[in-house]
Amino acid sequence: MRARRPPLVTLLTDFGQRDGYVGAMKGALLSCVPGLTLIDLSHDIAPFDVRAAGYLLASAAFDFPPGTIHVAVVDPGVGGRRRLLIAETEGQRFLVPDNGLLDICRLRARVWRWYHVTRFELAHHPIAPTFHGRDLFAPLAAALARGVSATRMGVRLRDVPLRLGLPPASADGDRLCGTIMHVDRFGSLMSTIDGQAVRRCTHGASCRVRIGGHVIRRWVRTYADAPRGTAVALIGSLGWLEISVVEGSASDRLRVGCGDSVVLERDSA
Amino acid sequence: MRARRPPLVTLLTDFGQRDGYVGAMKGALLSCVPGLTLIDLSHDIAPFDVRAAGYLLASAAFDFPPGTIHVAVVDPGVGGRRRLLIAETEGQRFLVPDNGLLDICRLRARVWRWYHVTRFELAHHPIAPTFHGRDLFAPLAAALARGVSATRMGVRLRDVPLRLGLPPASADGDRLCGTIMHVDRFGSLMSTIDGQAVRRCTHGASCRVRIGGHVIRRWVRTYADAPRGTAVALIGSLGWLEISVVEGSASDRLRVGCGDSVVLERDSA
Amino acid sequence: MRARRPPLVTLLTDFGQRDGYVGAMKGALLSCVPGLTLIDLSHDIAPFDVRAAGYLLASAAFDFPPGTIHVAVVDPGVGGRRRLLIAETEGQRFLVPDNGLLDICRLRARVWRWYHVTRFELAHHPIAPTFHGRDLFAPLAAALARGVSATRMGVRLRDVPLRLGLPPASADGDRLCGTIMHVDRFGSLMSTIDGQAVRRCTHGASCRVRIGGHVIRRWVRTYADAPRGTAVALIGSLGWLEISVVEGSASDRLRVGCGDSVVLERDSA
Repeated sequence: MRARRPPLVTLLTDFGQRDGYVGAMKGALLSCVPGLTLIDLSHDIAPFDVRAAGYLLASAAFDFPPGTIHVAVVDPGVGGRRRLLIAETEGQRFLVPDNGLLDICRLRARVWRWYHVTRFELAHHPIAPTFHGRDLFAPLAAALARGVSATRMGVRLRDVPLRLGLPPASADGDRLCGTIMHVDRFGSLMSTIDGQAVRRCTHGASCRVRIGGHVIRRWVRTYADAPRGTAVALIGSLGWLEISVVEGSASDRLRVGCGDSVVLERDSA
Repeated sequence: MRARRPPLVTLLTDFGQRDGYVGAMKGALLSCVPGLTLIDLSHDIAPFDVRAAGYLLASAAFDFPPGTIHVAVVDPGVGGRRRLLIAETEGQRFLVPDNGLLDICRLRARVWRWYHVTRFELAHHPIAPTFHGRDLFAPLAAALARGVSATRMGVRLRDVPLRLGLPPASADGDRLCGTIMHVDRFGSLMSTIDGQAVRRCTHGASCRVRIGGHVIRRWVRTYADAPRGTAVALIGSLGWLEISVVEGSASDRLRVGCGDSVVLERDSA
Repeated sequence: MRARRPPLVTLLTDFGQRDGYVGAMKGALLSCVPGLTLIDLSHDIAPFDVRAAGYLLASAAFDFPPGTIHVAVVDPGVGGRRRLLIAETEGQRFLVPDNGLLDICRLRARVWRWYHVTRFELAHHPIAPTFHGRDLFAPLAAALARGVSATRMGVRLRDVPLRLGLPPASADGDRLCGTIMHVDRFGSLMSTIDGQAVRRCTHGASCRVRIGGHVIRRWVRTYADAPRGTAVALIGSLGWLEISVVEGSASDRLRVGCGDSVVLERDSA
């Protein structure tokens, strides 16, 4: 009889790729569950950049098969009093420090179940207080992969997880106000303004985007719809308003970055 | 009874490693075919650098087991009118945009079978026009891995794939003229001049290399054959003429880069 | 009957991630042993930085399951007269050039068995003299993974492997003198001073660290124990004395790097 395939485990850290931290975590996971399939989401998150890690998770986690365990270790509070959480939604499971890492994911899924990890018997002892990735996250993720339930490791969360402090997009008459929450490798600017809100606001009327002192009037379906170098607005592949420059960098050209504000206005306004 | 092992799928993109694009593609592939083995060739190709991706593919694809599917997404024309191609040669299969990505591979294998993808039923719908990697390349590669034939997804190509415009090496009496088509991480310069052409041209006579105003007379079998800092000529591990500096960077030292010309001359000339 | 799972193979190189070298090695390994599980330790070691590769290996290799084969190709002497070694300790196996790569690992494990590879029948012929990673390391590692013994490929080493020349930590009355052997991504400084030596030297008395003209008096268990920006001393996750700045870079702040000296003194001194 063939053993059931264990679930996938994805890894997301700010450990970089020049140190042994990622390898040590992988070794610890594979020592717990031989044959486990590990998928790197990224290890190149800037040190301590919880928001960037959170955006990445929101843009990749929901494409994985149900049951996948996403382990994210961007954790400036390692070894301190910050809590460890297990979260479940739409078939995906997450093991994260309680520092806002799932805040952007929460924009993509409504119903969540949260656990506060309180039992550490399954961790690797002694737990190095500076490397929970290896001694805590890895063995607990391995336990989840082996079928140990979240309730064996913790209790249902009674309060709410920490927030990132990212301001939600807001509607104001004929305007939608949002924030750039991510700049991707190509320099494209990803906003908090949802594509559905854009459609509700514009009712198909033409509209413009104000960002960094610039006004963008050219809407496209994809980059190839406008000549190279054009600044364009579009609904990106995650469903949020995106500002791009065709085969160029909107961030460089418009001098706009993470945290800057973006406003969508109907042209009639 | 044991299921046949699905073929390997390799991934090559210019998505970088700080965004969720690679993870989303992997999730999409693994959602289609659980247990698929994914191999990263690179995600650090400079944005839109089709030539660099093509060189990388030529230097790695042919070492994989027969049946491997190489998915390359360096695709500035995503969502536009560029075609999607499936190509087969020497047991390797490729799924690429029609933008010259396989041009350098064509220097390493003669007989190719080309398909133009015209049927998209197996894609993930709706297809985000800015992210074909996730919604088109991933599910079609997964279909190939499950055994769906190229003819189920497209038709034999009637014309020819796009070219990169890389000038072929040429012989001119006692001289061979070529182009630098790649600079590797170590600063070594990889030319379009084939090692066999070098042997035909020189007939064992001594010869020199002219490049960037420099003349290289030292030929070696490998870097360790000359003292640190020496500029040397050799036939590289892919069989092409390579210019290197031992434990240094030929590109920095000689101030030569991609697209520059290189000439091999017999010393008698 | 189910086949026994082949051992894991980890890969550590200075090949970078923009060239085809890593992919070619993986293809060669998987062509020899279909279904092999490959784990990337790192390919971002600075070119020819044997010490950095050695530190990384020491910080990750021992977390893998017994039987794992660690292949490390940071090899400026490729194709020259440097030897190829197989080493075994505590269930881990290593395939490395003889250039000091295992020197830091030897601080973490006492009993080693060394082999000098002398038989190359199992290599890929012809062996490209500039790319032993693909033509030599990959097929020999694959052979080890298939169960071929080290004695089939070589002979017990009669002399000793090359050393890195890293000075060992030394005790001098109430002082311990060591060297910074690694700076990690976060800018933390990893020294050669062992945590047990620290405890023996201090006998629980308070002590200070002198480094780069600075004196560090704040000892912590983990980074979160001191306010952001504080320079702290601690015993790191590998058991060695580490100097860090909380959520900052000790290397930048103290202007200290690899090879610099560090001294631990009892406060009574």
